[in-house]
Amino acid sequence: MSDVRVIKAALLGAGTVGSGVYDILQWQKDEMPKKLGAVVELKKILVRNTKKPREGMDSSLFTDNWKEILDDPEIEIVIEVMGGIEPAKTYITEALHAGKHVVTANKDLLAEHGKEVLDAAEEHGCDLMFEAAVAGGIPIIRPLKQCLAANHLTEVMGIVNGTTNYILTKMTKDHMEFADALALATELGYAEADPTADVEGYDAARKVAIMASIAFNSRVTFSDVYTQGITKITAADIAYATEMGMVIKLLGVARNTDTGIEAGVYPMLIPADHPLAGVNDSFNAVFVHGDAVDDAMFQGRGAGKLPTGSAVAGDIFEVARDIVAGSTGRINCTCYKNLRIKPVDEVQNRYFMRMEVEDRPGVLAAIASVFGNNHVSIAQVIQKSVGEGTAELVIITDQVEERHFKDALLVMNEMSIVKEIPSVLRVYAQSE
Amino acid sequence: MSDVRVIKAALLGAGTVGSGVYDILQWQKDEMPKKLGAVVELKKILVRNTKKPREGMDSSLFTDNWKEILDDPEIEIVIEVMGGIEPAKTYITEALHAGKHVVTANKDLLAEHGKEVLDAAEEHGCDLMFEAAVAGGIPIIRPLKQCLAANHLTEVMGIVNGTTNYILTKMTKDHMEFADALALATELGYAEADPTADVEGYDAARKVAIMASIAFNSRVTFSDVYTQGITKITAADIAYATEMGMVIKLLGVARNTDTGIEAGVYPMLIPADHPLAGVNDSFNAVFVHGDAVDDAMFQGRGAGKLPTGSAVAGDIFEVARDIVAGSTGRINCTCYKNLRIKPVDEVQNRYFMRMEVEDRPGVLAAIASVFGNNHVSIAQVIQKSVGEGTAELVIITDQVEERHFKDALLVMNEMSIVKEIPSVLRVYAQSE
Repeated sequence: MSDVRVIKAALLGAGTVGSGVYDILQWQKDEMPKKLGAVVELKKILVRNTKKPREGMDSSLFTDNWKEILDDPEIEIVIEVMGGIEPAKTYITEALHAGKHVVTANKDLLAEHGKEVLDAAEEHGCDLMFEAAVAGGIPIIRPLKQCLAANHLTEVMGIVNGTTNYILTKMTKDHMEFADALALATELGYAEADPTADVEGYDAARKVAIMASIAFNSRVTFSDVYTQGITKITAADIAYATEMGMVIKLLGVARNTDTGIEAGVYPMLIPADHPLAGVNDSFNAVFVHGDAVDDAMFQGRGAGKLPTGSAVAGDIFEVARDIVAGSTGRINCTCYKNLRIKPVDEVQNRYFMRMEVEDRPGVLAAIASVFGNNHVSIAQVIQKSVGEGTAELVIITDQVEERHFKDALLVMNEMSIVKEIPSVLRVYAQSE
Repeated sequence: MSDVRVIKAALLGAGTVGSGVYDILQWQKDEMPKKLGAVVELKKILVRNTKKPREGMDSSLFTDNWKEILDDPEIEIVIEVMGGIEPAKTYITEALHAGKHVVTANKDLLAEHGKEVLDAAEEHGCDLMFEAAVAGGIPIIRPLKQCLAANHLTEVMGIVNGTTNYILTKMTKDHMEFADALALATELGYAEADPTADVEGYDAARKVAIMASIAFNSRVTFSDVYTQGITKITAADIAYATEMGMVIKLLGVARNTDTGIEAGVYPMLIPADHPLAGVNDSFNAVFVHGDAVDDAMFQGRGAGKLPTGSAVAGDIFEVARDIVAGSTGRINCTCYKNLRIKPVDEVQNRYFMRMEVEDRPGVLAAIASVFGNNHVSIAQVIQKSVGEGTAELVIITDQVEERHFKDALLVMNEMSIVKEIPSVLRVYAQSE
């Protein structure tokens, strides 16, 4: 084994994911020569404070000077696990221009500047891998790019944010309200101090942008993804969903239709027997539909030191294999199409609407006629008297373009018989 | 596009899977140059009867002469979808020796002669890919070999036979007996005329051998996998399982323990909230546990023309990418260890036993003492009087080595108070 090839790498960031990658590379040290025909060794670790002790890590590798890594010709792989757009973007771009291969877990960067960094990789014949950027440890990027490459994929959707899935699971199983479930998630460390990116769907939207780009071979960026958060979901909505045999999940949904790509993140009612309905707590899952494979689903841990480290280290192994085989840059950007992104107004969905109305004859007829006038068909209605002259009306519509539904909503908001419309949610319908 | 590289391939077999591969390659014709930097074109299709018309297929490609393919230097990829050991093994071996790359869906061959064909591929620097051999369209081989390569995997198990999963689903949901569910499966074309390989677990065992070999980096062959079929499962067993919050599934289970690899296929009781418990009808799923990724699951269609074709065509695309990148043979046999296969007597499991005993005081005590004398702990007991002096006793044990359980069973079979022991099943317990 003394003549096994040693590939030097640098780790940018020594936080949760960085320490996971560090540990896994240690554990796999003796396996690597047999698995890869090479050993990947960390030569440098970029940290903000080199004096801060980090348990289990060799502090002699620490540096706070990026140039030391960039200018070291021996370092062939740069592993970026700092997160955030800058300075990650500059480092990755400089590394690629220097001919270094890059493995990154950075969803923010890829969802906004994926094209730029992938183009840089292409230009320099480098590998740029990012399996960890979507759904943590769950293999999804490589299955989409390789295993399912012979499919025309029409749908990729999933539960790609563990924090919100945990909150919705608590609301469903323990009948908690949103605020209480969020407080619990924060206490347990599932939610960050500022939970905005999670609960408003921004984190999920970044992952949708990345997955849609790969699945449909056409660039989708973060700003193309419509988002609706879960902060307004109530225990009442969930109780109605349960009554109707459905479950509310925050879904990232991307569809490739004849008239363009639809991409959104919204709380959705899905049938309780759909495979995604059973994905609970902080688990993630991605569901794919293709013309050949039909339905497939990938499920597992979407975050955490070791699961995310597993995906990063898997990519490092792939780069090492490419270096050994002389095939770096073998698969890079696969966005060779330029498909239209559909504005949300054109997206078709079914809707769930919960409203408080005057409890008297003729009210449902009036509501129904507003829907009818706006091309919205009603699929299901539940009406319950809640006292004090008020009835709660829950309506599920058939599939309709969002703009028609919004038109109907505008009219209803002005109707005197309508007291309040606390909830408007979407209902999942299998694409045709 | 006129200068795009054309890679010629030959298809061996034009049955269900072969026609799926044929169709998918047609559908993807215009996409291939952009996805792969090359176009894969079928030059020959090996069939037994070249005169038989096959709908949608170009009959000018048909040949019944293997030599025509083998001796054609222009053919770079051989796609074997005939199934069975011979002549597939000879053809694949000859193709590899001639420097042709091979894509195959042949689980029988790989589970018994995987080493030989992988060695031949290695020797000649060829690709040999077989994603379709396990769980049809579901990506599992590549995720195990690549995405999860940085894990020490300790468990890989799954529902890898759609026929038996359909039968058990019918028995569970519609309370059918085995014979009726099998008859229905046969009528619907889910079961073959001779269902032995499915219902006895042999088909699943082949997939377990292949998955275990890859997951644990050590060769496991078909004969190493213990099998128990589902023919003796009754509606009564399923009713008890339901009562205990469990579901009966035919599971292929492989574990990498400190004392060796365990590999078996058996009907097992698993908790109703386990992700595999919700995988119903003819769907397949594979569940993996690793030191870094924790739990992950892959789910989808385990068979069928297009799903299996999706996996085969994905492999063909990979070979094409390797040819373009000059990196064929990049990843071949990953069995670099030589781990012991544990005899089934040493395998630890929990057991479910349903027995008919005399309905009088002291009987349970007598049974319990036999278990105690044989190092078997009892976890749960249900006793029901069934009339005519008979009680039905259902016992679930704690984890125990199979040999101890068997010893207890031998004693019980001789006891006069024991009238019959109609069911002995295993109960899934998460590995430690």
